[in-house]
Amino acid sequence: MRSSGDETGKCKRNINTQNQKCTGDSSSGKGSIRVIGLGPGDDCLLAPQARYAIENADAVVGYTGYVKLISKTLLEGREVLSTGMMAEVERCRKAVESAVSGRNVVMVCSGDPGIYAMAGLVMELLEKGKLFDEVKFEVIPGIPAFTAAAALLGAPLMHDFASISLSDLLTPWEKIEKRLAAAADADFVIAIYNPRSKNRPENLGKAIAIVRKYRVDSTPVGIVNKAYRDGQKVQIATLETMNEQDVDMQTVLIIGNSSTRISGEMMLTPRGYSNKYDI
Amino acid sequence: MRSSGDETGKCKRNINTQNQKCTGDSSSGKGSIRVIGLGPGDDCLLAPQARYAIENADAVVGYTGYVKLISKTLLEGREVLSTGMMAEVERCRKAVESAVSGRNVVMVCSGDPGIYAMAGLVMELLEKGKLFDEVKFEVIPGIPAFTAAAALLGAPLMHDFASISLSDLLTPWEKIEKRLAAAADADFVIAIYNPRSKNRPENLGKAIAIVRKYRVDSTPVGIVNKAYRDGQKVQIATLETMNEQDVDMQTVLIIGNSSTRISGEMMLTPRGYSNKYDI
Repeated sequence: MRSSGDETGKCKRNINTQNQKCTGDSSSGKGSIRVIGLGPGDDCLLAPQARYAIENADAVVGYTGYVKLISKTLLEGREVLSTGMMAEVERCRKAVESAVSGRNVVMVCSGDPGIYAMAGLVMELLEKGKLFDEVKFEVIPGIPAFTAAAALLGAPLMHDFASISLSDLLTPWEKIEKRLAAAADADFVIAIYNPRSKNRPENLGKAIAIVRKYRVDSTPVGIVNKAYRDGQKVQIATLETMNEQDVDMQTVLIIGNSSTRISGEMMLTPRGYSNKYDI
Repeated sequence: MRSSGDETGKCKRNINTQNQKCTGDSSSGKGSIRVIGLGPGDDCLLAPQARYAIENADAVVGYTGYVKLISKTLLEGREVLSTGMMAEVERCRKAVESAVSGRNVVMVCSGDPGIYAMAGLVMELLEKGKLFDEVKFEVIPGIPAFTAAAALLGAPLMHDFASISLSDLLTPWEKIEKRLAAAADADFVIAIYNPRSKNRPENLGKAIAIVRKYRVDSTPVGIVNKAYRDGQKVQIATLETMNEQDVDMQTVLIIGNSSTRISGEMMLTPRGYSNKYDI
């Protein structure tokens, strides 16, 4: 039993009144697939709406490493279908097949499900199978990895920013290089995802070399490993001093723009108030 | 009284063990300032950690329009200092002064506090006053407006993206134009914040004209007003068909990249799986 002060109970009421899709009600006989974002992984940053979707799912599908982030009590009574890294298509197909069979399925992503995650692939499979009328489809947003990293660094975003993945598994490296140069030249704060894999350790060095053509050596670089997870590590270096050995696939990098500075032990990108107002 | 199943209670335990900064404990005698993100505004998308910060604050400071998004029960017993639009510096100064006086202050932002919000300005004031040792400072991330909009549109992000604000109050318009051209030329999905104000109604038209130099007329544009708030409106148009009258300062636009398509009634940017795998 939960008390009336209960957040989850409160959330259910909101969902029932505000968003019928969220009730987890399958009285229509239709199955559903909800692609949710866990946020960085800490329960304290998991949106109640995503928690509610898990609590009301028949099946929870996701990469093993992400499913592990979900508290065991929350998974009690759910079928859990988890697959290893690199099995995205298999994982999403399982989720869609289960939803077609009439079940309420939750596809788990870390961060936000629409940022380098599974919302798109699930949609592609629904489109391919002409299943939009067969299955309820919903995306429940989450706190993205790069804003979680930014919060731990201070205020490095604040102004216009670009997000670039260095993974060239699905994207030609030339396109990634063009985006790095364009973002650096136009003075965007740059968030880097998938910065360094065992198979492509050299991509990060190439990327930093491109950015250094446009930014001074002293430009701050935030290096955040496992934000809000066990083993969290937050460092601030510069384009000149950063050590690639501190970076792996779970790291998010945030490269400052031309006005980003180190402030206290944090990273600050002023938005421009001091040019206009007396602060 | 709350039951043991209580999310907020659970969250407190997590916070106490994982992040001492989050306990709201001021036994050190120090005041604190926590800049939090409400997310889009729906309680169901408010992170428990942000809720907990409000529940344990002595004072809650924010723009009136955002403070209104917080449920009254949550604000009970807190001093609320809200100020109108355009009073950012005054608002942040109030928050800092209150924290210096030893109180636990929450500065409320919508979306994520590090994206076109107040985390940076609060840091600037703490830096200016040499207050980093006097006051505990923490940023609690939230679900950004553009990922909330993306979730309602389907999966329009998925690949590398850039975020650009069309407000030229603090940024020279020439810099904004350069960023629009760079992001469009490098084929980023583009999120547009502050697209159309009463004082600068022409900026949106200028911005779309720049993007159209690089993208075909049929490029999908997601137009999301008041995501997850009363009066929510979600539309998908194209660069050719979009109607500027549907856009105001509370709208977030998401302009697709060269491979974004309309799928069902949603917007889909494929990440590239179909080029590599049989889906």
